[in-house]
Amino acid sequence: MNTILIKNIYCENKRKDVFIKDGKIDKIGDSLDFNADKIIDGKNKAIIPGFYNMHTHAAMSLLRGYKDDVKLFDWLNAIWEIEDHLEEEDMYWGTKLACLEMIKSGTTCFLDQYWMINTSAQAIKEMGMRACLSYTFMDAGNKEKAEFNRKTCEKAFEDSKKWDSRIQFAVGTHSIYTVCEENLKFTHDFARANNILEHIHVAETEVEYNESIKKYGLSPVQYLDSLGALSDSVVAAHCVWLNEKDIKLLGERGVTVTHNPNSNLKLGSGYRFLYNELKAAGANVTIGTDGCGSSNNLDLLEAMKTASLLQKGWRGDATALPINEILNIGTVNGAKALHLNGGKIEEGALADLCIIDLNSSRFVPNYNFESNLIYSANSSCIETVICDGKIIMEDRQVPGEQEIIDNSRRVVDKLWKYKKN
Amino acid sequence: MNTILIKNIYCENKRKDVFIKDGKIDKIGDSLDFNADKIIDGKNKAIIPGFYNMHTHAAMSLLRGYKDDVKLFDWLNAIWEIEDHLEEEDMYWGTKLACLEMIKSGTTCFLDQYWMINTSAQAIKEMGMRACLSYTFMDAGNKEKAEFNRKTCEKAFEDSKKWDSRIQFAVGTHSIYTVCEENLKFTHDFARANNILEHIHVAETEVEYNESIKKYGLSPVQYLDSLGALSDSVVAAHCVWLNEKDIKLLGERGVTVTHNPNSNLKLGSGYRFLYNELKAAGANVTIGTDGCGSSNNLDLLEAMKTASLLQKGWRGDATALPINEILNIGTVNGAKALHLNGGKIEEGALADLCIIDLNSSRFVPNYNFESNLIYSANSSCIETVICDGKIIMEDRQVPGEQEIIDNSRRVVDKLWKYKKN
Repeated sequence: MNTILIKNIYCENKRKDVFIKDGKIDKIGDSLDFNADKIIDGKNKAIIPGFYNMHTHAAMSLLRGYKDDVKLFDWLNAIWEIEDHLEEEDMYWGTKLACLEMIKSGTTCFLDQYWMINTSAQAIKEMGMRACLSYTFMDAGNKEKAEFNRKTCEKAFEDSKKWDSRIQFAVGTHSIYTVCEENLKFTHDFARANNILEHIHVAETEVEYNESIKKYGLSPVQYLDSLGALSDSVVAAHCVWLNEKDIKLLGERGVTVTHNPNSNLKLGSGYRFLYNELKAAGANVTIGTDGCGSSNNLDLLEAMKTASLLQKGWRGDATALPINEILNIGTVNGAKALHLNGGKIEEGALADLCIIDLNSSRFVPNYNFESNLIYSANSSCIETVICDGKIIMEDRQVPGEQEIIDNSRRVVDKLWKYKKN
Repeated sequence: MNTILIKNIYCENKRKDVFIKDGKIDKIGDSLDFNADKIIDGKNKAIIPGFYNMHTHAAMSLLRGYKDDVKLFDWLNAIWEIEDHLEEEDMYWGTKLACLEMIKSGTTCFLDQYWMINTSAQAIKEMGMRACLSYTFMDAGNKEKAEFNRKTCEKAFEDSKKWDSRIQFAVGTHSIYTVCEENLKFTHDFARANNILEHIHVAETEVEYNESIKKYGLSPVQYLDSLGALSDSVVAAHCVWLNEKDIKLLGERGVTVTHNPNSNLKLGSGYRFLYNELKAAGANVTIGTDGCGSSNNLDLLEAMKTASLLQKGWRGDATALPINEILNIGTVNGAKALHLNGGKIEEGALADLCIIDLNSSRFVPNYNFESNLIYSANSSCIETVICDGKIIMEDRQVPGEQEIIDNSRRVVDKLWKYKKN
């Protein structure tokens, strides 16, 4: 099926027809008269771009609810203990479970940082999504591990050339406190040389910030800059502990910053995300869910609501982070970071789209569709999802859903035995 | 249909049978062998108490999304302008729309403060929910209006004796800044004399707090206490601006405090809700959504997640407001305030219950059901709702749903013409 015609659907304040061909939005207009393999009636429906989840660890879906209401480093230690036992099969079903959840909540593309990325790439290809997978550097100062990371990265990059064209390769640098200085430079140079993204956790906690000051006399952001490791190739996740100079640097270097409000709140890592300041400085702000271990779902629409409310809340300013800006943060800003012509309903853009069911109380009245989408609805309003011009969810059904749930339960039962209290 | 038998359902960490008779949970056990008018198979399902939404303005559902991203007093002025035009028919459909939304998100009982309460009572009765409706005092210092409020309250209380037995009457005192001193005393005395609740907004904004100090030399809480108007008859909504003495007073007087995290965040009113301190002082903490004008939905499960995350976030403490406590806040604490034996799955308790569908990614894995419910799921996991022993939603269908949506749209079109920019 290469063409889809969506008739008379609510699209940016008007009723329009949308014609999709060869993975792109071919034409938007009134009463379009095309032959199409599939026709969708847009009555009582709206169309929006698919969401970009710009920071997650997809297969951590298997660790959902494994440790809650404990401090960050207790949580990390518990998680790392289980992660040591993850096998290819777990990664395959864990990634599929994550894709299932993201598709059901309207995400069509995500930036991931986890393990066994060839297996993930296969799972994502089968689910029909778009993604960018990072090979993760994490050496804890161990020289052999650091060298292993460098060598494996080169190979992983070569392997990635066989991936589906919807899936990009990125370098994943875990953080300044788990990756040695040599590799912090290497990862950034590798990303620049190969024109790919570098995906790194930056300034997630006050501890990280203070330790960096203590160790280097520099904040995490300034430390990275001192290594020449900040540029528009970088996606920096979290960035909740920033000073004025950090903000200026992130803007000047054209860094993409990914806000993860639910994860930061739940782990008590920080809540004063400096959106206004980052935007003013020129940073590209995007949003993520983080992994299910901390967040505990992959629902970007929910994350967008939290981000918008939290920004208004801590600033005491009801006008902060308004609807149109949070929608851009969840869509087109993500696409921009990934150098994709997506995240928008426009002729020529990628046909990565969601169809919303307006026939529920959450959209009554419909004074303001975007307000209802962000502030009133939840992701169950997303009825149909199209990625790369193909339907990957229709009437809330994703092909193979029960098989994914059943297999995920099965592999989790196996992991469960490693659980400690 | 007076009896329901739910077989083999996940209930507080075990599989149990639950037998419902005459509006109560009659028996909980293994392999119960009762004749029942209706049998529900609990496979892949869990049972939880229905939620108590302890502060809302139900028919403000019609004002959902009417004004967003503006400051509190701009918002209030815009809302009041439209509210002047609300008629009985609007209240009827607005209340039904609100009930529909609450039922779909697992709320079986709510505490309301709005207008035309006989009409609301009729709508709620028809929807099968439980509620407590407040006759609202709001005189803005006008003596005639104040007297009118007192007289009308007496009559409204008499009228309420004809309401369905599921619906309680309360005195609604809008706030210390909209109700004169005489009536602040009157409302509390009236509530005490008649053994009913008083429902009042308290310390919602910094402006309210500062004005109270300026005018009375006392915080809002202390001012109410100086009038003898604090007791365990009082449900105080918001309470985000409290000092130490206020917290002590709220505890000592046995006041029920209702936290409205989404509304407080969205309006930029405050975010440092002092849950730990209020709990330690002995106040009964509950949770509400506030009205759709500000919050912008009536989804208590969502409010519970926000409350839990926000508490961890602003305190920088991942152990704050853990799962079991937020569940109590959303259920049994509300029932306690309303003197109902509800909000729990226990023999003899009210049969106000939700059945949760576990067969979705949000509950995979199911290491911790309660964690998945609060942190991972959204309200679309609620499949069936029982109130007073009767099914009011089955397989996500509420009787009359389309009629409510259609009529709400119709009455909103009429209100729409009063909209100003």
